[in-house]
Amino acid sequence: MVREGDDVAKLICAALDREQLDLFAGDVVVVASKILAKAEGRSVDLESVQPSDAARTLAQDADKDPRLVQLVLDESTHVSRVRAGVLLVRHRLGFVSANAGIDRSNIENTSQVLLLPTDPDAWARELRSKISSTYGVDLGVVVADTHGRAFRRGNLGVAIGVSGFEPLADLRGTQDLFGNVLEATIVPVADQLAAAAGLVTGESAEGLPVVVVRGALVMPGEAGATSLVWSPEEDLYA
Amino acid sequence: MVREGDDVAKLICAALDREQLDLFAGDVVVVASKILAKAEGRSVDLESVQPSDAARTLAQDADKDPRLVQLVLDESTHVSRVRAGVLLVRHRLGFVSANAGIDRSNIENTSQVLLLPTDPDAWARELRSKISSTYGVDLGVVVADTHGRAFRRGNLGVAIGVSGFEPLADLRGTQDLFGNVLEATIVPVADQLAAAAGLVTGESAEGLPVVVVRGALVMPGEAGATSLVWSPEEDLYA
Repeated sequence: MVREGDDVAKLICAALDREQLDLFAGDVVVVASKILAKAEGRSVDLESVQPSDAARTLAQDADKDPRLVQLVLDESTHVSRVRAGVLLVRHRLGFVSANAGIDRSNIENTSQVLLLPTDPDAWARELRSKISSTYGVDLGVVVADTHGRAFRRGNLGVAIGVSGFEPLADLRGTQDLFGNVLEATIVPVADQLAAAAGLVTGESAEGLPVVVVRGALVMPGEAGATSLVWSPEEDLYA
Repeated sequence: MVREGDDVAKLICAALDREQLDLFAGDVVVVASKILAKAEGRSVDLESVQPSDAARTLAQDADKDPRLVQLVLDESTHVSRVRAGVLLVRHRLGFVSANAGIDRSNIENTSQVLLLPTDPDAWARELRSKISSTYGVDLGVVVADTHGRAFRRGNLGVAIGVSGFEPLADLRGTQDLFGNVLEATIVPVADQLAAAAGLVTGESAEGLPVVVVRGALVMPGEAGATSLVWSPEEDLYA
């Protein structure tokens, strides 16, 4: 259980040590955003939230707690879709997700909710720097959340913080096996890593909050996780 | 190179044999849809396509070859979004993707395009049956394609055919670490597997068309890949 103020890098290294696991150059450490949010003290007691009129109205349409909706509005820049039980927004970090990623599970007190970390890319850079220097090798770090999706059912792991490699591998202009130039091939490597980590963790992001992926092909870069998100102008759906 | 009429199961087993790889119970074999489409003879010469007036109009809006657009319309049930260079449709198999998954790359003759396999779930069942019986163990099979996404950049692996396990792990009603009941937790395991396979293949689906994933937690079931897709009525975006 991670608590506010904990040194997460130190906890991760200690856990690897306990499991007698070493890290190697190119390994990518995928960390559940939830433990970073806890370390950062991003939990909020709903009892302390005073919902606005706008939040009350939206809460009625979405069939949700007006205090939760107030927090969602505070964390977002745009409401994308509203239905009974559904509130999809563009988070201030750029991505579109349900309830601005605010989570009620894995919280001890049920009037407590957990916001996403303030700056997941900064978390990724800090963890990368600390863990890389502990092991003396160059690592990648992904801060992972799970998002519902347009078109497809189920919540899939996505990268909301990235450091140590290029989140998108841009293969445009390269050639396929027959020498044809690939026109539209951008591979979201950081999201692939977050999705793959979900195979190991299931939905138990706190029971198993850290996954190491070895052998993935990553390219150097530091564009951060916001590079994974369509801007509002480019997005054909949000 | 897979050719029309090839026995893909036999080719996969031969390739595993060459690499001296064994398969174990619970392994999931992720197969690129492209090689199945080729084996099935789904390539079409654009020279043979006579576009309708509707296809010509849409082709102008999408800035695409009218013959390609005709094939896209033939393969789809609904046009979702059109912009210059972009044609997003609901495929007859249910999912929303660009150009109905019709591919121009990795084809020797550039007037040739490749449609998706007719029935990827049937392919998954057939491959599973044949490969499982060759190795004498119970396997899962995913037929994988890559799709662009709403909200997020890049093409991610998705499952368009599944056999041998439940594509969606439904954790609703189970409890988290603090005993709170999880309300909305459906994990798209088959899509996680397809996305993870992309870490190994890159975009070179023909250079490395088969990936074996070992150790994933899968549950028995045979709902098939269509269970991964929101119906038009449920879909808030398409």
